[in-house]
Amino acid sequence: MPNPDPSPIRPTDDDARHLAQGLIRQTKYAALAVLMPETGAPMVSRIAFATTPDREPLTLISDLSAHTKALVHDPQCSILVGEPGERGDPLTHPRLTLQARATFIRKGARGHDALRAHYLSATPKATLYVDFADFAFVRFAVSEAYLNGGFGKAFHLTPTDLGL
Amino acid sequence: MPNPDPSPIRPTDDDARHLAQGLIRQTKYAALAVLMPETGAPMVSRIAFATTPDREPLTLISDLSAHTKALVHDPQCSILVGEPGERGDPLTHPRLTLQARATFIRKGARGHDALRAHYLSATPKATLYVDFADFAFVRFAVSEAYLNGGFGKAFHLTPTDLGL
Repeated sequence: MPNPDPSPIRPTDDDARHLAQGLIRQTKYAALAVLMPETGAPMVSRIAFATTPDREPLTLISDLSAHTKALVHDPQCSILVGEPGERGDPLTHPRLTLQARATFIRKGARGHDALRAHYLSATPKATLYVDFADFAFVRFAVSEAYLNGGFGKAFHLTPTDLGL
Repeated sequence: MPNPDPSPIRPTDDDARHLAQGLIRQTKYAALAVLMPETGAPMVSRIAFATTPDREPLTLISDLSAHTKALVHDPQCSILVGEPGERGDPLTHPRLTLQARATFIRKGARGHDALRAHYLSATPKATLYVDFADFAFVRFAVSEAYLNGGFGKAFHLTPTDLGL
Protein backbone atom coordinates (compact mmCIF):
# COMPACT_ATOMS: atom_id res chain seq x y z
CA MET A 1 0.00 0.00 0.00
CA PRO A 2 1.57 3.36 -0.92
CA ASN A 3 1.74 5.89 1.90
CA PRO A 4 -0.68 8.71 0.96
CA ASP A 5 1.36 11.18 3.02
CA PRO A 6 5.05 10.47 2.32
CA SER A 7 6.27 13.06 4.87
CA PRO A 8 8.19 15.46 2.66
CA ILE A 9 10.03 18.22 4.42
CA ARG A 10 7.69 21.21 4.32
CA PRO A 11 8.79 24.78 3.63
CA THR A 12 9.53 26.56 6.90
CA ASP A 13 6.86 29.09 7.91
CA ASP A 14 6.22 31.27 10.95
CA ASP A 15 3.95 28.63 12.53
CA ALA A 16 6.84 26.15 12.46
CA ARG A 17 9.27 28.75 13.88
CA HIS A 18 6.90 29.68 16.72
CA LEU A 19 6.18 26.04 17.53
CA ALA A 20 9.90 25.22 17.71
CA GLN A 21 10.75 28.32 19.78
CA GLY A 22 7.92 27.49 22.18
CA LEU A 23 9.18 23.92 22.63
CA ILE A 24 12.65 25.23 23.55
CA ARG A 25 11.27 27.90 25.90
CA GLN A 26 8.86 25.62 27.77
CA THR A 27 10.88 22.43 28.10
CA LYS A 28 12.25 21.44 31.51
CA TYR A 29 13.96 18.19 30.53
CA ALA A 30 15.19 16.53 27.37
CA ALA A 31 16.83 13.45 25.87
CA LEU A 32 20.53 13.98 25.10
CA ALA A 33 22.37 11.80 22.57
CA VAL A 34 26.16 11.65 22.71
CA LEU A 35 28.93 9.42 21.32
CA MET A 36 30.40 6.91 23.79
CA PRO A 37 34.17 7.47 23.99
CA GLU A 38 35.04 3.75 24.14
CA THR A 39 32.92 2.50 21.25
CA GLY A 40 31.73 5.49 19.22
CA ALA A 41 28.17 4.18 19.68
CA PRO A 42 25.37 6.65 20.30
CA MET A 43 23.98 6.84 23.84
CA VAL A 44 20.85 8.65 24.96
CA SER A 45 19.99 9.77 28.48
CA ARG A 46 17.82 12.34 30.24
CA ILE A 47 19.03 15.80 31.20
CA ALA A 48 17.55 18.89 32.77
CA PHE A 49 16.87 21.49 30.07
CA ALA A 50 16.83 25.26 30.37
CA THR A 51 18.00 28.23 28.29
CA THR A 52 20.62 30.96 28.65
CA PRO A 53 19.54 34.61 28.67
CA ASP A 54 20.31 34.46 24.91
CA ARG A 55 17.79 31.60 24.53
CA GLU A 56 20.51 29.02 23.84
CA PRO A 57 19.85 25.52 25.25
CA LEU A 58 21.52 24.96 28.61
CA THR A 59 21.87 22.14 31.09
CA LEU A 60 23.56 21.43 34.43
CA ILE A 61 25.25 18.03 34.58
CA SER A 62 27.62 16.03 36.75
CA ASP A 63 31.11 14.84 35.76
CA LEU A 64 30.13 11.51 37.30
CA SER A 65 27.62 10.72 34.58
CA ALA A 66 28.43 8.94 31.33
CA HIS A 67 26.95 11.68 29.13
CA THR A 68 29.26 14.30 30.67
CA LYS A 69 32.35 12.16 30.09
CA ALA A 70 31.20 11.65 26.50
CA LEU A 71 30.73 15.40 25.90
CA VAL A 72 34.19 16.14 27.33
CA HIS A 73 35.58 13.66 24.79
CA ASP A 74 33.44 14.81 21.84
CA PRO A 75 31.11 17.83 22.00
CA GLN A 76 28.88 16.64 19.14
CA CYS A 77 25.41 15.89 20.42
CA SER A 78 21.70 15.93 19.72
CA ILE A 79 18.83 16.97 21.98
CA LEU A 80 15.16 15.98 21.76
CA VAL A 81 12.69 18.38 23.36
CA GLY A 82 8.89 18.39 23.48
CA GLU A 83 7.45 15.76 25.78
CA PRO A 84 3.94 14.49 25.20
CA GLY A 85 1.37 14.89 27.92
CA GLU A 86 -0.27 11.88 29.52
CA ARG A 87 -3.20 11.89 27.11
CA GLY A 88 -3.24 11.58 23.36
CA ASP A 89 -0.89 9.98 20.85
CA PRO A 90 2.78 10.66 21.65
CA LEU A 91 3.66 10.42 17.95
CA THR A 92 1.38 13.29 17.03
CA HIS A 93 2.81 15.50 19.79
CA PRO A 94 5.25 18.11 18.42
CA ARG A 95 8.92 17.52 19.13
CA LEU A 96 12.18 19.08 18.06
CA THR A 97 15.62 17.56 17.48
CA LEU A 98 18.53 19.97 17.95
CA GLN A 99 21.93 19.13 16.45
CA ALA A 100 24.48 20.88 18.62
CA ARG A 101 27.97 21.20 20.08
CA ALA A 102 28.45 21.39 23.83
CA THR A 103 30.56 23.98 25.66
CA PHE A 104 31.27 23.63 29.38
CA ILE A 105 31.03 26.64 31.71
CA ARG A 106 32.63 25.65 35.00
CA LYS A 107 32.82 27.51 38.31
CA GLY A 108 35.36 30.31 37.96
CA ALA A 109 34.86 30.59 34.19
CA ARG A 110 33.74 33.90 32.74
CA GLY A 111 29.96 34.20 32.84
CA HIS A 112 29.51 31.32 35.28
CA ASP A 113 28.02 33.36 38.11
CA ALA A 114 25.49 35.14 35.92
CA LEU A 115 24.48 31.82 34.37
CA ARG A 116 24.16 30.27 37.84
CA ALA A 117 21.82 33.06 39.00
CA HIS A 118 19.77 32.84 35.79
CA TYR A 119 19.51 29.04 36.03
CA LEU A 120 18.48 29.04 39.68
CA SER A 121 15.78 31.64 39.06
CA ALA A 122 14.15 29.16 36.63
CA THR A 123 15.08 25.97 38.52
CA PRO A 124 15.22 26.80 42.25
CA LYS A 125 15.61 23.21 43.41
CA ALA A 126 18.98 22.96 41.63
CA THR A 127 20.26 25.05 44.57
CA LEU A 128 20.72 21.67 46.27
CA TYR A 129 23.51 20.58 43.91
CA VAL A 130 24.56 23.50 41.69
CA ASP A 131 27.67 24.12 43.83
CA PHE A 132 28.83 20.50 44.01
CA ALA A 133 32.36 20.30 42.59
CA ASP A 134 31.34 17.74 39.94
CA PHE A 135 28.53 19.84 38.43
CA ALA A 136 29.01 22.17 35.47
CA PHE A 137 26.83 24.13 33.10
CA VAL A 138 26.83 23.14 29.47
CA ARG A 139 25.44 25.35 26.76
CA PHE A 140 24.61 23.96 23.35
CA ALA A 141 25.42 25.79 20.11
CA VAL A 142 22.72 24.61 17.71
CA SER A 143 23.72 24.04 14.07
CA GLU A 144 20.38 22.74 12.76
CA ALA A 145 17.04 21.48 13.96
CA TYR A 146 14.38 19.03 12.83
CA LEU A 147 10.83 19.82 13.86
CA ASN A 148 8.20 17.11 13.76
CA GLY A 149 4.79 18.70 14.25
CA GLY A 150 3.03 15.33 14.02
CA PHE A 151 2.54 12.65 11.36
CA GLY A 152 3.85 13.97 8.05
CA LYS A 153 4.60 17.49 9.33
CA ALA A 154 8.38 17.73 9.16
CA PHE A 155 10.52 20.86 8.90
CA HIS A 156 14.25 21.60 8.80
CA LEU A 157 15.05 24.71 10.79
CA THR A 158 18.12 26.92 11.08
CA PRO A 159 19.44 28.62 14.23
CA THR A 160 17.94 31.86 12.86
CA ASP A 161 14.53 30.17 12.66
CA LEU A 162 14.95 29.39 16.36
CA GLY A 163 15.82 33.00 17.25
CA LEU A 164 19.44 32.03 17.95
CA MET B 1 31.42 21.77 47.78
CA PRO B 2 31.94 18.00 47.54
CA ASN B 3 28.93 16.03 46.33
CA PRO B 4 27.74 13.94 49.31
CA ASP B 5 26.24 11.36 46.93
CA PRO B 6 28.74 10.81 44.13
CA SER B 7 26.43 8.45 42.19
CA PRO B 8 28.48 5.27 42.14
CA ILE B 9 27.07 2.38 40.17
CA ARG B 10 25.19 0.25 42.68
CA PRO B 11 25.22 -3.55 42.74
CA THR B 12 22.30 -4.90 40.69
CA ASP B 13 19.47 -6.31 42.80
CA ASP B 14 15.98 -7.65 42.07
CA ASP B 15 14.40 -4.24 42.69
CA ALA B 16 16.54 -2.79 39.91
CA ARG B 17 15.72 -5.71 37.58
CA HIS B 18 11.98 -5.38 38.20
CA LEU B 19 12.05 -1.61 37.77
CA ALA B 20 13.88 -1.93 34.43
CA GLN B 21 11.64 -4.73 33.16
CA GLY B 22 8.56 -2.72 34.10
CA LEU B 23 9.85 0.34 32.22
CA ILE B 24 10.32 -1.75 29.05
CA ARG B 25 6.93 -3.44 29.40
CA GLN B 26 4.91 -0.29 30.04
CA THR B 27 6.53 2.16 27.66
CA LYS B 28 4.63 3.27 24.54
CA TYR B 29 7.22 5.64 23.08
CA ALA B 30 10.91 6.30 23.45
CA ALA B 31 13.84 8.45 22.36
CA LEU B 32 16.05 6.74 19.79
CA ALA B 33 19.67 7.83 19.22
CA VAL B 34 21.38 6.87 15.96
CA LEU B 35 24.49 7.91 14.02
CA MET B 36 23.88 10.25 11.07
CA PRO B 37 25.31 8.66 7.92
CA GLU B 38 26.69 11.92 6.49
CA THR B 39 28.48 13.22 9.58
CA GLY B 40 28.72 10.43 12.15
CA ALA B 41 27.06 12.79 14.64
CA PRO B 42 24.50 11.40 17.05
CA MET B 43 20.85 12.23 16.37
CA VAL B 44 17.91 11.64 18.69
CA SER B 45 14.24 11.43 17.74
CA ARG B 46 10.99 9.96 19.05
CA ILE B 47 9.73 6.50 18.10
CA ALA B 48 6.82 4.28 19.03
CA PHE B 49 7.98 1.60 21.46
CA ALA B 50 6.60 -1.89 21.97
CA THR B 51 8.00 -5.37 22.59
CA THR B 52 8.12 -8.64 20.68
CA PRO B 53 6.51 -11.77 22.18
CA ASP B 54 10.05 -12.48 23.53
CA ARG B 55 10.04 -9.10 25.33
CA GLU B 56 12.62 -7.62 22.99
CA PRO B 57 12.19 -3.90 22.22
CA LEU B 58 10.35 -3.27 18.94
CA THR B 59 9.29 -0.32 16.86
CA LEU B 60 7.52 0.40 13.58
CA ILE B 61 9.19 3.12 11.52
CA SER B 62 9.10 4.67 8.06
CA ASP B 63 11.91 4.58 5.49
CA LEU B 64 11.15 8.26 4.93
CA SER B 65 12.46 9.29 8.33
CA ALA B 66 16.07 10.18 9.05
CA HIS B 67 16.40 7.69 11.92
CA THR B 68 15.43 4.80 9.62
CA LYS B 69 17.99 5.80 6.99
CA ALA B 70 20.58 6.01 9.77
CA LEU B 71 19.75 2.53 11.11
CA VAL B 72 19.98 1.04 7.60
CA HIS B 73 23.47 2.54 7.37
CA ASP B 74 24.59 1.59 10.91
CA PRO B 75 22.46 -0.53 13.26
CA GLN B 76 24.15 0.75 16.44
CA CYS B 77 21.67 2.71 18.51
CA SER B 78 20.50 3.67 21.98
CA ILE B 79 16.97 3.92 23.35
CA LEU B 80 15.72 5.90 26.34
CA VAL B 81 12.51 4.64 27.96
CA GLY B 82 10.64 5.78 31.06
CA GLU B 83 8.82 9.06 30.60
CA PRO B 84 8.03 11.20 33.62
CA GLY B 85 4.43 12.07 34.35
CA GLU B 86 3.24 15.64 34.39
CA ARG B 87 3.86 16.05 38.10
CA GLY B 88 7.05 15.74 40.08
CA ASP B 89 10.71 16.15 39.17
CA PRO B 90 11.58 14.54 35.80
CA LEU B 91 15.13 13.90 36.99
CA THR B 92 13.99 11.72 39.88
CA HIS B 93 11.72 9.67 37.60
CA PRO B 94 13.22 6.26 36.72
CA ARG B 95 14.53 5.84 33.18
CA LEU B 96 16.48 3.25 31.30
CA THR B 97 19.03 3.57 28.50
CA LEU B 98 19.29 0.50 26.23
CA GLN B 99 22.38 0.05 24.06
CA ALA B 100 21.27 -2.00 21.08
CA ARG B 101 21.59 -3.09 17.46
CA ALA B 102 18.64 -2.79 15.09
CA THR B 103 17.34 -5.55 12.81
CA PHE B 104 14.68 -4.80 10.19
CA ILE B 105 11.73 -7.16 9.68
CA ARG B 106 10.02 -6.17 6.44
CA LYS B 107 6.82 -7.41 4.85
CA GLY B 108 7.46 -10.86 3.39
CA ALA B 109 10.28 -11.62 5.85
CA ARG B 110 9.99 -14.64 8.10
CA GLY B 111 8.03 -13.77 11.24
CA HIS B 112 6.65 -10.51 9.85
CA ASP B 113 3.00 -11.51 9.92
CA ALA B 114 3.10 -12.80 13.50
CA LEU B 115 4.90 -9.65 14.59
CA ARG B 116 2.32 -7.51 12.77
CA ALA B 117 -0.57 -9.26 14.57
CA HIS B 118 1.22 -8.96 17.93
CA TYR B 119 2.01 -5.28 17.39
CA LEU B 120 -1.50 -4.37 16.30
CA SER B 121 -3.02 -6.10 19.32
CA ALA B 122 -1.04 -3.71 21.55
CA THR B 123 -1.21 -0.67 19.24
CA PRO B 124 -4.49 -0.85 17.28
CA LYS B 125 -4.21 2.60 15.75
CA ALA B 126 -1.09 1.52 13.85
CA THR B 127 -3.56 -0.30 11.58
CA LEU B 128 -3.76 3.02 9.73
CA TYR B 129 -0.17 2.82 8.46
CA VAL B 130 1.33 -0.61 9.25
CA ASP B 131 0.82 -1.75 5.64
CA PHE B 132 2.29 1.33 3.97
CA ALA B 133 5.18 0.21 1.76
CA ASP B 134 7.66 2.49 3.56
CA PHE B 135 6.98 1.09 7.05
CA ALA B 136 8.98 -1.74 8.61
CA PHE B 137 9.34 -3.32 12.00
CA VAL B 138 12.66 -3.00 13.77
CA ARG B 139 13.61 -5.12 16.72
CA PHE B 140 16.47 -4.15 18.99
CA ALA B 141 19.01 -6.66 20.33
CA VAL B 142 20.08 -5.14 23.65
CA SER B 143 23.75 -5.51 24.66
CA GLU B 144 23.66 -3.54 27.90
CA ALA B 145 21.47 -1.14 29.83
CA TYR B 146 21.89 1.76 32.23
CA LEU B 147 19.13 2.24 34.78
CA ASN B 148 18.79 5.55 36.57
CA GLY B 149 16.32 5.14 39.40
CA GLY B 150 16.65 8.80 40.45
CA PHE B 151 19.43 11.02 41.81
CA GLY B 152 22.42 8.84 42.69
CA LYS B 153 20.67 5.51 41.98
CA ALA B 154 22.51 4.14 38.96
CA PHE B 155 22.81 0.51 37.84
CA HIS B 156 24.42 -1.29 34.91
CA LEU B 157 22.20 -4.14 33.71
CA THR B 158 22.75 -7.06 31.37
CA PRO B 159 20.25 -8.53 28.88
CA THR B 160 19.72 -11.35 31.41
CA ASP B 161 18.78 -8.79 34.07
CA LEU B 162 16.14 -7.55 31.63
CA GLY B 163 14.74 -11.05 31.04
CA LEU B 164 16.15 -11.12 27.50
